[in-house]
Amino acid sequence: MRVLGVDPGLTRCGMGTVDAGGARRVSLVDMRVVRSPAELAPHKRLLIIADGLQEVIDAFKPDVVAVERVFAQSNVRSVTGTAQVAGIVMLAAARAGLRLAMHTPSEVKAAVTGNGRADKRQVQVMVQRILRLASLPRPADAADAVAIAIAHSWRGSALSDEEPDQAQHGGAGTLPRATGGDLTPAQRMWAGAERMSRRHGAVAPAAKNDV
Amino acid sequence: MRVLGVDPGLTRCGMGTVDAGGARRVSLVDMRVVRSPAELAPHKRLLIIADGLQEVIDAFKPDVVAVERVFAQSNVRSVTGTAQVAGIVMLAAARAGLRLAMHTPSEVKAAVTGNGRADKRQVQVMVQRILRLASLPRPADAADAVAIAIAHSWRGSALSDEEPDQAQHGGAGTLPRATGGDLTPAQRMWAGAERMSRRHGAVAPAAKNDV
Repeated sequence: MRVLGVDPGLTRCGMGTVDAGGARRVSLVDMRVVRSPAELAPHKRLLIIADGLQEVIDAFKPDVVAVERVFAQSNVRSVTGTAQVAGIVMLAAARAGLRLAMHTPSEVKAAVTGNGRADKRQVQVMVQRILRLASLPRPADAADAVAIAIAHSWRGSALSDEEPDQAQHGGAGTLPRATGGDLTPAQRMWAGAERMSRRHGAVAPAAKNDV
Repeated sequence: MRVLGVDPGLTRCGMGTVDAGGARRVSLVDMRVVRSPAELAPHKRLLIIADGLQEVIDAFKPDVVAVERVFAQSNVRSVTGTAQVAGIVMLAAARAGLRLAMHTPSEVKAAVTGNGRADKRQVQVMVQRILRLASLPRPADAADAVAIAIAHSWRGSALSDEEPDQAQHGGAGTLPRATGGDLTPAQRMWAGAERMSRRHGAVAPAAKNDV
């Protein structure tokens, strides 16, 4: 399964593509940030991001698009811009016939670091380890997008916005979960992080379809 | 100038197209609501709305798209959905090479009723009078979209998100404003309403480009 993770933003939109195999193995396919100049009119900025996204979809043909779910923040303006970008990402997924999932930032952080309140640096460090990269993934927005893709690969449709009939037909939840004693040390680390995140209530099924 | 006004909404998205002539004359071209079923996944709902919007753009070829600007409300979920729809509307305008403007609900209400806090019914009544319709425009969401288009026709680029260089080259602000004693009674009514709305501070240039 190939997952495109998107960290929506009007100024910088992170896009990270990973391949997910069995036993929680993930490998990096592509990682980039599409930028739009603040001096352009907002609709033209959205067009730049939409074109950049389409390029990624055409080039890497993901099976599913996982987007960070936007919640209320103190800055209403940035929420509005972020939600507009999320909207065009969702539209691109629908147009391409791809499945769509949305994950909250805390769900993603919990999945990759074990801590739903991890900072950007911790996320970068864990993304580097998980993907066995030679250096920290940069810029941070791209690392966030890759983290969303990894989180989706591991946690699957339990958190997705897919319709029930889709989830039943080979949806994102069909990845085998590594369990028991035949784990590598790294796999045990992820499994522990995931248990921890579950314990901390990061998985919120009630948040489904609330967009 | 042909203006397409859009009242963005995930469940009901109002779209109203008007032709604006000199001396504040406006006439109705089309008025409709595109609906998306709540039981569909959000990205598929956005696709339905995007397709419906494209149909209107292709059929009526507006010069400018005017969208209601979303602000924070008590209900964060509905704001997010509305902003997502606004994003796809803005994207469609950019793709079609159309100018884009955004107006707040109070700016629109002030422009068409003279009262920035007018209720839906008042807006419907004024839209009916302005366009000389035989009956109240329905549904209300369509009337709101038409009101946005009318407000944009009258108030133009002073409230728009256009880039400066566009506004200078025959932008939405070039509509002649009716003034003085050669107004019809109806035109005097609109002029009075507009003065009133200005006095009440409904025009907020500081809100430009804050999406």
